[in-house]
Amino acid sequence: MSPSIISLLHGPDQPGIVAKVSGWIHDRGGNVLHADQHLDRQENVFFQRVEWDPASGHEAREDSEAFVDFAERELGMSVRIALSDDRPKVALMVSKADHCFHDLVLRVRAGEWNAEFAGVLSNHEDLAPVAESYALPFLHLPMSLESKPEVENRQLAWLHENGVELVILARYMQVLSGDFLERVGCPVINIHHSFLPSFAGAKPYHQAYKRGVKLIGATAHYVTEDLDEGPIIEQDVARVSHRHGPRDLIEKGRDLEKVVLSTAVRRHLQNRVLDYRNKTVVFD
Amino acid sequence: MSPSIISLLHGPDQPGIVAKVSGWIHDRGGNVLHADQHLDRQENVFFQRVEWDPASGHEAREDSEAFVDFAERELGMSVRIALSDDRPKVALMVSKADHCFHDLVLRVRAGEWNAEFAGVLSNHEDLAPVAESYALPFLHLPMSLESKPEVENRQLAWLHENGVELVILARYMQVLSGDFLERVGCPVINIHHSFLPSFAGAKPYHQAYKRGVKLIGATAHYVTEDLDEGPIIEQDVARVSHRHGPRDLIEKGRDLEKVVLSTAVRRHLQNRVLDYRNKTVVFD
Amino acid sequence: MSPSIISLLHGPDQPGIVAKVSGWIHDRGGNVLHADQHLDRQENVFFQRVEWDPASGHEAREDSEAFVDFAERELGMSVRIALSDDRPKVALMVSKADHCFHDLVLRVRAGEWNAEFAGVLSNHEDLAPVAESYALPFLHLPMSLESKPEVENRQLAWLHENGVELVILARYMQVLSGDFLERVGCPVINIHHSFLPSFAGAKPYHQAYKRGVKLIGATAHYVTEDLDEGPIIEQDVARVSHRHGPRDLIEKGRDLEKVVLSTAVRRHLQNRVLDYRNKTVVFD
Amino acid sequence: MSPSIISLLHGPDQPGIVAKVSGWIHDRGGNVLHADQHLDRQENVFFQRVEWDPASGHEAREDSEAFVDFAERELGMSVRIALSDDRPKVALMVSKADHCFHDLVLRVRAGEWNAEFAGVLSNHEDLAPVAESYALPFLHLPMSLESKPEVENRQLAWLHENGVELVILARYMQVLSGDFLERVGCPVINIHHSFLPSFAGAKPYHQAYKRGVKLIGATAHYVTEDLDEGPIIEQDVARVSHRHGPRDLIEKGRDLEKVVLSTAVRRHLQNRVLDYRNKTVVFD
Repeated sequence: MSPSIISLLHGPDQPGIVAKVSGWIHDRGGNVLHADQHLDRQENVFFQRVEWDPASGHEAREDSEAFVDFAERELGMSVRIALSDDRPKVALMVSKADHCFHDLVLRVRAGEWNAEFAGVLSNHEDLAPVAESYALPFLHLPMSLESKPEVENRQLAWLHENGVELVILARYMQVLSGDFLERVGCPVINIHHSFLPSFAGAKPYHQAYKRGVKLIGATAHYVTEDLDEGPIIEQDVARVSHRHGPRDLIEKGRDLEKVVLSTAVRRHLQNRVLDYRNKTVVFD
Repeated sequence: MSPSIISLLHGPDQPGIVAKVSGWIHDRGGNVLHADQHLDRQENVFFQRVEWDPASGHEAREDSEAFVDFAERELGMSVRIALSDDRPKVALMVSKADHCFHDLVLRVRAGEWNAEFAGVLSNHEDLAPVAESYALPFLHLPMSLESKPEVENRQLAWLHENGVELVILARYMQVLSGDFLERVGCPVINIHHSFLPSFAGAKPYHQAYKRGVKLIGATAHYVTEDLDEGPIIEQDVARVSHRHGPRDLIEKGRDLEKVVLSTAVRRHLQNRVLDYRNKTVVFD
Repeated sequence: MSPSIISLLHGPDQPGIVAKVSGWIHDRGGNVLHADQHLDRQENVFFQRVEWDPASGHEAREDSEAFVDFAERELGMSVRIALSDDRPKVALMVSKADHCFHDLVLRVRAGEWNAEFAGVLSNHEDLAPVAESYALPFLHLPMSLESKPEVENRQLAWLHENGVELVILARYMQVLSGDFLERVGCPVINIHHSFLPSFAGAKPYHQAYKRGVKLIGATAHYVTEDLDEGPIIEQDVARVSHRHGPRDLIEKGRDLEKVVLSTAVRRHLQNRVLDYRNKTVVFD
Repeated sequence: MSPSIISLLHGPDQPGIVAKVSGWIHDRGGNVLHADQHLDRQENVFFQRVEWDPASGHEAREDSEAFVDFAERELGMSVRIALSDDRPKVALMVSKADHCFHDLVLRVRAGEWNAEFAGVLSNHEDLAPVAESYALPFLHLPMSLESKPEVENRQLAWLHENGVELVILARYMQVLSGDFLERVGCPVINIHHSFLPSFAGAKPYHQAYKRGVKLIGATAHYVTEDLDEGPIIEQDVARVSHRHGPRDLIEKGRDLEKVVLSTAVRRHLQNRVLDYRNKTVVFD
């Protein structure tokens, strides 16, 4: 069976966009399966996710390219396109904590997501045996202040050689340099262990304990040069009380981090997330 | 400023519906503000909510009638239509409990919803002073097994005379007869104080206490002849523990009932709810 | 029937406190109904809430005074005491928003809490008719930068004359001066319309919209001289999406503010909250 | 360092229990770390969880036995006792689904709980490689209607030989016989993939889809002879919409099942759960 085509569009609003998009698909014999849209009235920007089956006999890849051409030229929109059977290559970057690592790998193995793990990059070797138990390539590159530029170069080389289309920071405890982000060439999703913008920076659970909050949170976001300031994809919280010390918050936070990161990655892989002006539109 | 037009469509799926609907609106100079759709693949039924501004100079009422004509004749769909400045008349039916009553009236007064209260019907006179304090007409008709048919006749007469378009059972403790439901001529929304289908019937909080559940719930649904079996619009739950006796559950449940009922009514009044085969599609 | 006695204790931890407290109560013929305790191991501070029925024939007031004497002298603890039939006098301070106002007054009228409203203080007269409809005294004192000290004096005089034991800022849009807080002589609870410490300060919903968070929150806290920095009693959040503009956040936030503020006030009135070092212990 | 002692008591309420228990501990030089209690006023049953450090130089095991003796003889209470460094042996029973299996094993390996896996019992061999990858013994015994009594005998023999103190049904798709439950000699915790009592029995997600509920749930409970009727330890829910078909509910349910089952097991292993009259008291 032919895959369906998924398109994510955005650009300046204009009359009749919805009719033009669905008209183009219909004229070419396609059948719309899902369509969702959003208009940011403050910025006058239009967003759409539309998924359709191409006409029988059509090549999905070919139709999708024709659509990109149409949407860019005739509508002046930015377009991202995917086919429902795409299996993008994903790389994990980790340090020592393994809870998000296990969670993500097990989801891919259970067939929850259309994705393929290219491998694991780490500045520590602690998780090498775990990666091996999952038969995943593991690139261990220790990092110091001096070696950082050189190590990032080698990481980038590895990501490019392996055709990685999404990098997930699964509790990776190094800050990616602006240079790395500029050259990586694909989105990078990070899990921050606090309810941003609260407790940005280091040791958020200790900060939360000190402030005496009654809920702790976790935030998954695209990584930008501004540390902990990138577009938020997903957040969630869990209730805590005076009985929870910093260690309890850390343990409770692990479950939260797994759920929030996996939800963000799932939506990204399902091509449901558009980011602009440091915010996201998530079509769910 | 002219109001926008909101249409709720459903019917057998067919190729190109989305293109035809948006094409019709575009051809007539309208501009789509929101569109959401759903395809039930098991039943092959297509659902859509679409909201648009008619062309400047057009009469919204006129365009909406033309659209109904188009959607019914050319697409063979069932259509419901509303204008964004409609203020449907709503009647409350109550018994003795007043928490949902206050909550709903205060929301309308705060301007949260486009609606107008026609009045309050009750089988008890306890809430007459409250209705008076809100300057709402109050129709008190005591009800016994014998008088039920006669009382329901008078209630129906009142609802029809006052042009009521939505009836809300705000903890009304009488079962509406099949005859009443057949003749009422508008939707009836009820709040049930349990997480249906658990604990249907009487005294759900006592049932919940007895079973030792760890969450209690509330359910808002359209009323049908099958008691507590109508299409569910909204549900929510709250955490309880062994410390909560039946009275605590009742008190905790009050807040839940207010939130669930008001959410259901809001979505209904925003024309976001379609029901079919005893389930609902809620476009939110 | 004689009321029960509720004691809130805290002080340096020491061996056998639990045994000494329950032993004292038992020796005097009392019967413990509830007891909850907490040990902050970092600070070595012990906290306890204990509720008991005095021996039949005993005067609750008398026993409670004897207990305070015992706990202060023999255990060196700080003690707060209440009887289960106390009905503390509460004052509301409001500006123009009325949602928390209605919510609190209706809960007291529904008998949810043991409390009595002494009256309403406002820097605007908008809510005078509402206060009147609830038969509540309404003290309207407009406030400017110049008049603030004088107005606060008059507010304090009113609070003292009326024996107010708890002040609730129900969306009161003025900052209380340090002088006011020093002289008010009772706790002041505020509702902040954000998930503190995120978005402290003005217009939190606009800040939240700008940052693109996926959850908005509300925070109830005791007021201290450090604006928005007082001990947090309760917090909660609600899910939002890219579809919600600042106005939607404000509307959605209203329900959140009502629930969070009323939960905090309920727990305070049930003598379940102890604050120390800018955090709270909430025995629930 | 000596372990602390944890006691779970319950029995008919009587004056001064709290004082007697804490007095006994204090007299023996112990220091109470936590104490929580509950009085079921309807049944007049008293429950308590108390944790204490024995006096330095005392043997925890010895003191705990003395306490049991005291509580049974002098207070007439039922007592369960544990030491904080106990590592009870746990057995998993599974069929084909592996999500709860992975989740539980990874938590034990991460050191979240004090427990040791004795092994895995299954009526299918699908999960043998997974068990092997975790170095866990795997007992595969296929089961038919005829072989059930014989297979259960062999399962019981294995459990007894291995000193198993808790059995977890991690999506085990066979009903345990009354005979098995009578002879197993330790608690059995099951995860049911619905919000009981809704949708008891088979295929709960299909039932939930058909009814059109807006929340799905999962329930962890102790297993009794009455299928799906045992005392509930923990429940939770997740929001669903018309967009979710039965397969989506199954996938979404997996995360819910993991969280609910692991929460129940954690509380059981922390000796926080008492069951009586088909309900639980959970001291958290």
